[in-house]
Amino acid sequence: MHSALTGLACSRCAERYDADRVQGLCRCGSPLLARYDLAAVRSAVDPARIASRPPDLWRYAELLPVRAAAHRVSLGEGMTPLLPLPRLGARYGVPGLLVKDEGALPTGSFKARGAAVGVSRARELGIRALALPTNGNAGGAWASYAARAGLAATVVMPVDAPPITRAECVLAGADLYLVRGVIADAGRMVHRAAVAHGWFEAATLKEPYRVEGKKTMGLELIEQLGWRVPDVIVYPTGGGVGLIGIAKALAELRELGWIDDRLPRLVVAQAAGCAPIVTAFAAGAEDAAPWPDPHTVAYGLNVAAPLGARQVLAALRDTDGTAVAVTDADALAAQADCARAEGLLVCPEGGAALDAVRQLRATGWLNPDDEVVVLNTGTGLKYPEVLCIDPPVLNPDDDLPAPP
Amino acid sequence: MHSALTGLACSRCAERYDADRVQGLCRCGSPLLARYDLAAVRSAVDPARIASRPPDLWRYAELLPVRAAAHRVSLGEGMTPLLPLPRLGARYGVPGLLVKDEGALPTGSFKARGAAVGVSRARELGIRALALPTNGNAGGAWASYAARAGLAATVVMPVDAPPITRAECVLAGADLYLVRGVIADAGRMVHRAAVAHGWFEAATLKEPYRVEGKKTMGLELIEQLGWRVPDVIVYPTGGGVGLIGIAKALAELRELGWIDDRLPRLVVAQAAGCAPIVTAFAAGAEDAAPWPDPHTVAYGLNVAAPLGARQVLAALRDTDGTAVAVTDADALAAQADCARAEGLLVCPEGGAALDAVRQLRATGWLNPDDEVVVLNTGTGLKYPEVLCIDPPVLNPDDDLPAPP
Repeated sequence: MHSALTGLACSRCAERYDADRVQGLCRCGSPLLARYDLAAVRSAVDPARIASRPPDLWRYAELLPVRAAAHRVSLGEGMTPLLPLPRLGARYGVPGLLVKDEGALPTGSFKARGAAVGVSRARELGIRALALPTNGNAGGAWASYAARAGLAATVVMPVDAPPITRAECVLAGADLYLVRGVIADAGRMVHRAAVAHGWFEAATLKEPYRVEGKKTMGLELIEQLGWRVPDVIVYPTGGGVGLIGIAKALAELRELGWIDDRLPRLVVAQAAGCAPIVTAFAAGAEDAAPWPDPHTVAYGLNVAAPLGARQVLAALRDTDGTAVAVTDADALAAQADCARAEGLLVCPEGGAALDAVRQLRATGWLNPDDEVVVLNTGTGLKYPEVLCIDPPVLNPDDDLPAPP
Repeated sequence: MHSALTGLACSRCAERYDADRVQGLCRCGSPLLARYDLAAVRSAVDPARIASRPPDLWRYAELLPVRAAAHRVSLGEGMTPLLPLPRLGARYGVPGLLVKDEGALPTGSFKARGAAVGVSRARELGIRALALPTNGNAGGAWASYAARAGLAATVVMPVDAPPITRAECVLAGADLYLVRGVIADAGRMVHRAAVAHGWFEAATLKEPYRVEGKKTMGLELIEQLGWRVPDVIVYPTGGGVGLIGIAKALAELRELGWIDDRLPRLVVAQAAGCAPIVTAFAAGAEDAAPWPDPHTVAYGLNVAAPLGARQVLAALRDTDGTAVAVTDADALAAQADCARAEGLLVCPEGGAALDAVRQLRATGWLNPDDEVVVLNTGTGLKYPEVLCIDPPVLNPDDDLPAPP
């Protein structure tokens, strides 16, 4: 189980970089991506061998950048459930609806994947202190994995980010600061401080390995389907690294010959209050313009200027995909519908992705016989603020009301 | 993969009952336990065969009461991580410290195991509506699995139970009532209503199958250790069903011959503000007296009169175990220490179990070379109320302070 990592290459200009030194963005300003010797992977391992390994994301070690098992930083992440949603699917007119429930990961969100791989690789490369901006969940995840690794972490998040993520950061020993602003403000503050204090800047796509962790969402769902792609994958998209990771997983699996040439159509779901990629896709643009005045309760989607927009838009075009905006009201309605119909409490971002399915079936973009996998990026338990509940309060001698 | 269930037997008087009819308590007032044809299990399956099955609790189907796979109600529960805690273990003087992290389950607590198996079996037996009292997490779990199964659910919980569990119940479509009282008050209200309205009473140990789901905690941790027992298992104990389930798993595995005769010492951790089992164990009593005025922030431990106390006490005596009381302050300190040292945010109940390890090493009851498995029964994310955090708030043009 050795990593087949060969180097880093710019996602835009293709310039190569040494992966065994600490790297950030390409000189041209674009993200770097890990490259692997896939022929070596093909001769070292196959799907049957992978099936015999423990149910965590390290089962894909050859396709991950961490070279030594001793450097793996783990809280037991990976192999999240892939669940059929028969009742909700029937309601939407898409009976083949499935959800991959990332709420089951450590720290309760998909951010654990990027943090597990990113922190492991940071430790392997000798980094001792890191800093990152976040909309909340990535901060909780990176702070937790940094604690597990014994690294120092500094986190900056908007004051409006989900409050529980503050506690995750502080309890894990990170230095946490809130900013009266959005994630881009936090990013600039982190950048200034990282330059001043010599911290490693672990911001989305500025560090090349987080996306490798996110890639395992794609590897797992393909393995869980029996090494076969679904018709459509719907991803709630803020920074977009998850979608880029899934697209990278599909490309690598195709080159390995572990899936055939057919690709799923990739779909971006964004919040109507922050939809730079939806707007750019509709305009046929290659990059997204920053969204003015971003706001949404699906706080992970509150990214006005995603650094990976160019790669996300390319993935949508390459797979005949699309991009859909969802209002907060519709996202929360889908969250409630899913809880009631299926017993699964998704996060508001997951609700947005579910509502995108509803919309796309209504417009006919989805067919009734499409197999559709929705990524629920986190547990709804982290967002008590959006769940307004007012149950009756009784005294011990009261009788419960008769059922209606 | 067929259930080897043969019937139900009273845990006290051994009277037998037909498992394929709906049953509650024994005529003598004690809980019923499921019995299996273990010789048939031994000839049908072995550990190697189990290892090849998907990573969820249904891999132990022969030792579970659900007869038809079609009746399984699943949200992807089981095979939670078993994680070494090297830094916290070193601090406690118990380097072989491990935690089984039940926070990774659907609904964020170990209650998902009992609900998955209990609701599946209820549906299999034709039940259409159930009701239960809860300290919060069981309500969230049973409401969610009832929704997944299409059953109606009524839940009654104390007003002081963790607020997020209210949202879980209501969003899943359950009828939720709060009571100005403790879980025993909720239990009496449920009982009156169940009799009046013909609901199935799914209260702890009044229903025989919840414990079978909890049993899988024990099956999994033994499998994860390579079909070998640890020296000690520490369990945060409110109602005690988890501990009874683990003891039942050990007994069945021993009878199957899948582990040898040595049993781990079982340890109960309770809150100092509600410690009926600790008191009874210290007094050498066979049953526990109700605890007056119970109170603790580890709300799952707030059970003044556990129906399973007799079985729990027997399990402690049979394994040379013990029982430890933990103050809220110590439980929360252990929660914080674990987050900072290991990056794992346990629930306050898990913190109580960790502090029991600290205490037992300090008194010499634990040896430095003991392998100790602590059950963390849920994610700390469900208890934001106990996490008091006040990070600095900056403006976007501010610089972060220099590191100390």
